[in-house]
Amino acid sequence: MTANKRAAKASEETLHRIFTIPVAPNSTLGRIENEISQNLAGFLGAHIAASDQALTEIEKDFADSQIPEDPAFVSDHMHHLLDKLVAQSVHTSSPNFIGHMTSALPYFILPLSKLMIGLNQNLVKIETSKAFTPMERQVLGMMHRLVYQNDDAFYQQWMHSAAHSLGAFCSGGTIANLTALWVARNNLLKPEGDFRGVAREGLFKALKHYQYQGLAILVSSRGHYSLKKSADVLGLGQDSVIAIPTDENNKIDCQLLAAKCQQLANENIQVLSIVGVAGTTETGNIDPLQEMAAIAKRYNAHFHVDAAWGGATLLSKKYRPMLKGIELADSVTIDAHKQMYVPMGAGLVVFKNPASVAAIEHHAEYILRKGSKDLGSHTLEGSRPGMAMLVYAALHVISRPGYEMLINSSIEKAHYFASLIKQHADFELVTEPELCLLTYRYNPERVQQRLASVEQSQQEEINVLLDKLTKFIQKRQRENGKSFVSRTRIEVTRYQGRKTLVFRVVLANPLTTQKILQDVLAEQVQLAQESETFLPQLLALS
Amino acid sequence: MTANKRAAKASEETLHRIFTIPVAPNSTLGRIENEISQNLAGFLGAHIAASDQALTEIEKDFADSQIPEDPAFVSDHMHHLLDKLVAQSVHTSSPNFIGHMTSALPYFILPLSKLMIGLNQNLVKIETSKAFTPMERQVLGMMHRLVYQNDDAFYQQWMHSAAHSLGAFCSGGTIANLTALWVARNNLLKPEGDFRGVAREGLFKALKHYQYQGLAILVSSRGHYSLKKSADVLGLGQDSVIAIPTDENNKIDCQLLAAKCQQLANENIQVLSIVGVAGTTETGNIDPLQEMAAIAKRYNAHFHVDAAWGGATLLSKKYRPMLKGIELADSVTIDAHKQMYVPMGAGLVVFKNPASVAAIEHHAEYILRKGSKDLGSHTLEGSRPGMAMLVYAALHVISRPGYEMLINSSIEKAHYFASLIKQHADFELVTEPELCLLTYRYNPERVQQRLASVEQSQQEEINVLLDKLTKFIQKRQRENGKSFVSRTRIEVTRYQGRKTLVFRVVLANPLTTQKILQDVLAEQVQLAQESETFLPQLLALS
Repeated sequence: MTANKRAAKASEETLHRIFTIPVAPNSTLGRIENEISQNLAGFLGAHIAASDQALTEIEKDFADSQIPEDPAFVSDHMHHLLDKLVAQSVHTSSPNFIGHMTSALPYFILPLSKLMIGLNQNLVKIETSKAFTPMERQVLGMMHRLVYQNDDAFYQQWMHSAAHSLGAFCSGGTIANLTALWVARNNLLKPEGDFRGVAREGLFKALKHYQYQGLAILVSSRGHYSLKKSADVLGLGQDSVIAIPTDENNKIDCQLLAAKCQQLANENIQVLSIVGVAGTTETGNIDPLQEMAAIAKRYNAHFHVDAAWGGATLLSKKYRPMLKGIELADSVTIDAHKQMYVPMGAGLVVFKNPASVAAIEHHAEYILRKGSKDLGSHTLEGSRPGMAMLVYAALHVISRPGYEMLINSSIEKAHYFASLIKQHADFELVTEPELCLLTYRYNPERVQQRLASVEQSQQEEINVLLDKLTKFIQKRQRENGKSFVSRTRIEVTRYQGRKTLVFRVVLANPLTTQKILQDVLAEQVQLAQESETFLPQLLALS
Repeated sequence: MTANKRAAKASEETLHRIFTIPVAPNSTLGRIENEISQNLAGFLGAHIAASDQALTEIEKDFADSQIPEDPAFVSDHMHHLLDKLVAQSVHTSSPNFIGHMTSALPYFILPLSKLMIGLNQNLVKIETSKAFTPMERQVLGMMHRLVYQNDDAFYQQWMHSAAHSLGAFCSGGTIANLTALWVARNNLLKPEGDFRGVAREGLFKALKHYQYQGLAILVSSRGHYSLKKSADVLGLGQDSVIAIPTDENNKIDCQLLAAKCQQLANENIQVLSIVGVAGTTETGNIDPLQEMAAIAKRYNAHFHVDAAWGGATLLSKKYRPMLKGIELADSVTIDAHKQMYVPMGAGLVVFKNPASVAAIEHHAEYILRKGSKDLGSHTLEGSRPGMAMLVYAALHVISRPGYEMLINSSIEKAHYFASLIKQHADFELVTEPELCLLTYRYNPERVQQRLASVEQSQQEEINVLLDKLTKFIQKRQRENGKSFVSRTRIEVTRYQGRKTLVFRVVLANPLTTQKILQDVLAEQVQLAQESETFLPQLLALS
């Protein structure tokens, strides 16, 4: 045996070991795993660097485009990951990280995730998922019932029916919204006479056949960008998404909505879908769903509700009434990886009518044979992991009343934070919380008074400076690493709809305390003083 | 304090504990986790029931559509999951499960997955992923280089460029193929003069502007069903996917392809994309990519290669030449969760031209601001988990030569299995392995001889019976639970293109041994004898 052959053989053995010999408990990876199991928060706190390194610096560690020719030892690679990747990742589960829709996860999720990944089921078909298929169908059934509240007989009939589906589980809200609009489009432009339907013949022939001048999707100006993306993908074009202005509470103006529908009808443009938002991404407000449903019905439009964020509020008996009318929707998007406290990669859409999905049915010989219960015949995605198991477990372990407590407490925390902001003379609450989101900015009392008394041109000058100050504070706070709020730009009624930069806060993490919220404001006051240009300029103007 | 209030308080404490107190090592879940860590294969072997329970029976355990009102103890729920879900799941990592594109996973993947889930990054934007963004860009760079083999300068220029992207990471091959065709469509129907492009104005106006009669996607009859699904979603219609016949080796017939292109050109139908298949799902064959690229160029069509399954073969210097021409593709789909041995939910598409993705760019105020390096501006999905980390780690720990060994050994195992089938007088090899897939059927020697000598009508009678026998054996073998091969229906040249039922075997699991393959055949011979109707009928005919 030559030296080369021996080396090759040794490597084959190494490879075999990688697939068969478990990670030793006292190895680096084994110790890390144990640490994560015993104290995830501690692990993340200790390993994620508090300082904010510039992205261009981090990129230097990820610059090699060659796939390595030499294998790394698992333990060495683990150190590399800890130093270069984990240390520079974002502590999304930190109770101080209140800028996005992130949260700590329930502890039982971690070992269950490992089980899920070890099982490595593929939900596209029963042959690679078996019991996971009825389990996912049950999760969809539960979420469907949460929205539509049909009776037992309904679910007995449809939940496990091969040719039907109460919804589609997917990787997230964008795919869920896209799936809903895909179903809507294919049902609107269905086969008729010689025309074999848009699914077969495409949009060009479909519009010719139905003699529409075009299709439109109507949503408030606070609608999520995934809707424009979906319109693009579906061949409708982003311009087909028409933004309807909102009232001062970021809720769609139904009079304007109805007027636009009528105008489009006069132009022979069919409204494909009216989309209600239940939890706007930027402000957390809920559209008047009941009124919207009535308008959708009048114009024969598919009524979709994007409740990716707010849908979980249905689990709260106390706050459920805020979403009144959602049960009239033809489809509803809910992200389980948002307020349902499961990890990234779990979205879903439910359909009022279990037969809706027939419009997007696909088959193949080697799987998804007709009549099978394979979930893949009614989903946009093909191969998919068993994420539904985590939702299933969370629904059982947390249960509805547990979710109610979590959701109520988040909303009430937002109200508390709003009251803190209002009490502080140098802060301006921009949007009141309805769900657990709010926006605000640092705005010294004197400047606020000045803004209220001057003309619009002078207002603008001040607001431009305030925008700069907001950006300065937000970036500096993030860089300091103690806490994080996000920023966005929204139209503010009190400033004649001016697009204004604001702090955005999402209070979804059950571990965020009142003390943390107080500290966030205190740090922002402090940071404002550090602004050597904007604050003095502002005060000089006031 | 009333009893009710006390109960509520206790529950709030319980909830707080769920987010803060780790799973105790000696709890049920802790013990299970430990068992998985120490011996995953043993755990799965012990907990997945060997018997094949009817789906309708399993559904009874997943019949309740009510979200529970009472919380379950984690340990109780864990027992429930083991009994009802895990026991009835599919042992996809078993070396005896050779029916689909599944495999055992390297052991280091499990603890790393837990780390990934604990970190819970969201790759849509840097603010929730930080170093994960350059890490994912590096993985895309490495995979891009694997395909296109550009020089260092190229990757230095583009890998981390904000307005560019070498590809898109996504949940799987279907989304990858859809993304590729979306990019192709938007680039073909780009803005021109007054026309603002299909992304803005939609397909109806785009086709009018460009005065095409229609668009077409050309792929061999072995193309994956996700292409038809993509054509449906994109508004082109499933009928725009034109299946070109293959030769006897399941490779597209390039003469027919070129002729079809010319015919379409004469009809003023623009070929949007020619799709080469590098690893057909059913037979594992690779199209003549170089020839296809030339045809695509001639007709100004986007050349996409669906290498979801076969793309990993590029890691093998020995077998890479089989994919010659892939470097000419405008886009290539590769699934990391197939032959790259990471768990479900990891697909990607790479683009030859880093500027291609500008055609699908989306922005939003609260994230994905223009000029940012947020990955979300160039992906179909929005929120996405940090799965790229698992690919990153696997590329480093296994390394290119390690992957080469795994891939070579799978292909050679397929050749070994093919030789076993050929040596056995009562089996018929239907498709030769090119990658690690092959198809065959049980067909007694006497029947084979008869088939070769009779007319087509009599052939058909025999083949119908053989189909029934194949189905019988495949189902019975699955039910017995010792091993699993899949079945599909493919056109077989030697039977005048008749769609014939065959066993389909994928030899991707490094732990599948020659002994297992011998046993699979032996069991099938045995099962054939148990067929009380089909085998005697067949023999009577021969």
